[in-house]
Amino acid sequence: MSGEADFLRRLKAMVTDPAARGLADDAAVMLTRGHQLVLTSDTMVEGVHFRPDDPPDTVGWKLGAVNLSDLAAKGAVPSGCLLSYTLRANDTAWDREFLGGLGRCLKRFGMNLIGGDTVTAPQGAPRVLGLTAIGEVPAGQIIPSRAGARQGDKLYVSGPIGDAGAGLALLAEGKKAPGELVRAYRVPQPHVTMGQAIALKAHAMMDVSDGLLIDAWRMAEESRCALEITHVPLSEHYEAIHGDSIEARMAAATAGDDYVLLVALDGKREPPHGLIEVGQFKRGEGISIKLGGKRVRVPDKLGYEHG
Amino acid sequence: MSGEADFLRRLKAMVTDPAARGLADDAAVMLTRGHQLVLTSDTMVEGVHFRPDDPPDTVGWKLGAVNLSDLAAKGAVPSGCLLSYTLRANDTAWDREFLGGLGRCLKRFGMNLIGGDTVTAPQGAPRVLGLTAIGEVPAGQIIPSRAGARQGDKLYVSGPIGDAGAGLALLAEGKKAPGELVRAYRVPQPHVTMGQAIALKAHAMMDVSDGLLIDAWRMAEESRCALEITHVPLSEHYEAIHGDSIEARMAAATAGDDYVLLVALDGKREPPHGLIEVGQFKRGEGISIKLGGKRVRVPDKLGYEHG
Repeated sequence: MSGEADFLRRLKAMVTDPAARGLADDAAVMLTRGHQLVLTSDTMVEGVHFRPDDPPDTVGWKLGAVNLSDLAAKGAVPSGCLLSYTLRANDTAWDREFLGGLGRCLKRFGMNLIGGDTVTAPQGAPRVLGLTAIGEVPAGQIIPSRAGARQGDKLYVSGPIGDAGAGLALLAEGKKAPGELVRAYRVPQPHVTMGQAIALKAHAMMDVSDGLLIDAWRMAEESRCALEITHVPLSEHYEAIHGDSIEARMAAATAGDDYVLLVALDGKREPPHGLIEVGQFKRGEGISIKLGGKRVRVPDKLGYEHG
Repeated sequence: MSGEADFLRRLKAMVTDPAARGLADDAAVMLTRGHQLVLTSDTMVEGVHFRPDDPPDTVGWKLGAVNLSDLAAKGAVPSGCLLSYTLRANDTAWDREFLGGLGRCLKRFGMNLIGGDTVTAPQGAPRVLGLTAIGEVPAGQIIPSRAGARQGDKLYVSGPIGDAGAGLALLAEGKKAPGELVRAYRVPQPHVTMGQAIALKAHAMMDVSDGLLIDAWRMAEESRCALEITHVPLSEHYEAIHGDSIEARMAAATAGDDYVLLVALDGKREPPHGLIEVGQFKRGEGISIKLGGKRVRVPDKLGYEHG
C-alpha cells in the first residue's frame, strides 16, 4: 500500500463524528444547535515550531494540544477539527506515528477529526502541519477575550512557567534524557477543563504560547491597562536545573510554549483553586516587573514575536 | 515597518465580521443561529498547486476560490474563513499582493476573514498557504454529498472542462501571453450561486478539482454505481488551440483545476439552465467512456491522485 493510501486509511479510521462524513466528502457538516462556535487555527512548521528530531507522535500530540489550548482559553468545549497535512514521499512511518499522537490527544480531550486536506510537499521541504479546531460555548454565555482586564484585576496563570523553554534548551544542547522538561516542550497538556470552569468569571483570558511577558503585555495592551508582573512560578524540575534566582525567573518568563492559561480576575475575590497570582493590572499602560520586592528591568525581547 | 507588522496591519484592515474579534484574540467566535455549518480546508503548496512565478494576487484569489468551490458544491452560503500563512523574510510585496487578491475574492463572494495563524517559514522553504472556509445551510436542508448518485441519474458539469490544464501547459511551455486559458488556471471562478440553486435537487454534488474523470469516478465509487462518460465540453478558447478531437477531449478530462460543479440529477427531469450533460449512472461499478458514439479506452491516469 502506498504511503498516501496508508495515511488516508489511518485518517479515516480515526473518524467517528457524523460531521466528518467519513472523510469521503469535500467538506464537513456540523449541526450547531444554536451554540456559539469558537474557531482557532494553529500551524506548526518543522524547524520553527518543532525539531526535526522530535518524535513524530509528540508532534501530533502537540499540534492537537496547541489548538486545544486556544479553545481552553475561551472556555469552549472541544468539538471538531480539520487537519491540513503535508505528505512527503517515503515518510510512512513518520506519518503513522504523527497520526497516532494526534489521535491520542484528540481522544483525550473529546475533539473529533471532521475533515481537512492532505497535500504533497516537494522533497526536502519542511513539514507544515495545520489544524483548525472548533469548540462550542452555550448561546448567551460570555466568551472572554484578551481585551477585558480592568484596573485592580489580578493576573493569574494555571501552571508553572518556563518548563517547555528549558526542555527545548536541553534538546538544543544535545541532551538525550527525556525528563519532565523535555516532556513539557513536546507533550504540553492544554488546560481545557480549567478553562471551562474559569471562563464565566474571567475578565480576560488567553493562553501563554509565546512567553509569559509578551502574552501578558498583549493582554494589558488590548485591555488598555498597565500591568505589574510580581511573580514567575517555577516547577521543581525547572528549579533543580536553573535555581530560582531573578535571572532564572526572567528566562522562564521570556520562553515560550507554556500553554497555561493567563487569566484576569476581579482582584477583590478569592481566585479559583489551581490558579497562581503573577501580577496586577493598573491605570496606565506598559508592563513593569517586581520580583521578590525588587524592581527588575523589562527585557528588550519579551518572548517570541510570532508563532 | 517590518514585513510582518505590515502583513498583520493589512490583514486586520480586511476584517469586518464581529466573529473575527478584530483578529486581536486567539480565536474567532461565530453565532450560529441553528444553521448547519459546512467546513472545508484546502491548502496550496508553492511548486505543487501554484507556480512560483504566478502573480501573487492570483495565488490569493485562487486560495479563496478553491475553498469557495467546495462550499459551492454543498450549496452553502459562504460565511467565514481562517487563513494559515507562511511568512518569509523580505517578501513584503508578495505578501501584500497575495492579500489583495485573497481580499478581492472573499469580498466578491461575501466570505469574511475571521481568524487564522501567521507562521515563519525557514528561508527557501516553499510557501504553504491554507484556508479553512465555513459556509451556512439552513437547518433541515439536505446537503448533497458525493455518495448519492443513483442508477439512471444523469451527470452534469456547470462549465467547460480543461481550460485551466491547458493554461498551465502554456505557462510550462514558457508562453507569456495571459489569455483566457491562463486566466482559468490562475483566477478560477467558483460557482457559488449555481451550487446554492442546484443543491436542493442534486442527488450528489462535488466540484471538479483533480480532473473530470477522476472526480466523476470518485462520485460513482462513493455512490456504488457505474458511470458512462458521454461528453467532455470544451470552451472555444480550448478548441482554438487543441481542436475538438477525442484526444483533445481526453486531455481536458484528465487535467485538473476546473472548479466547475459536478452534479448527479434525476435523469428523467429537465436539468437547470447552465448545466451540461456529461454522462449517465448505471448499475454496476467502474467508469466507461463513449465520445461521439465511439467507445474510448479509459486512461490509466484519470487525473491528479491528490491535491
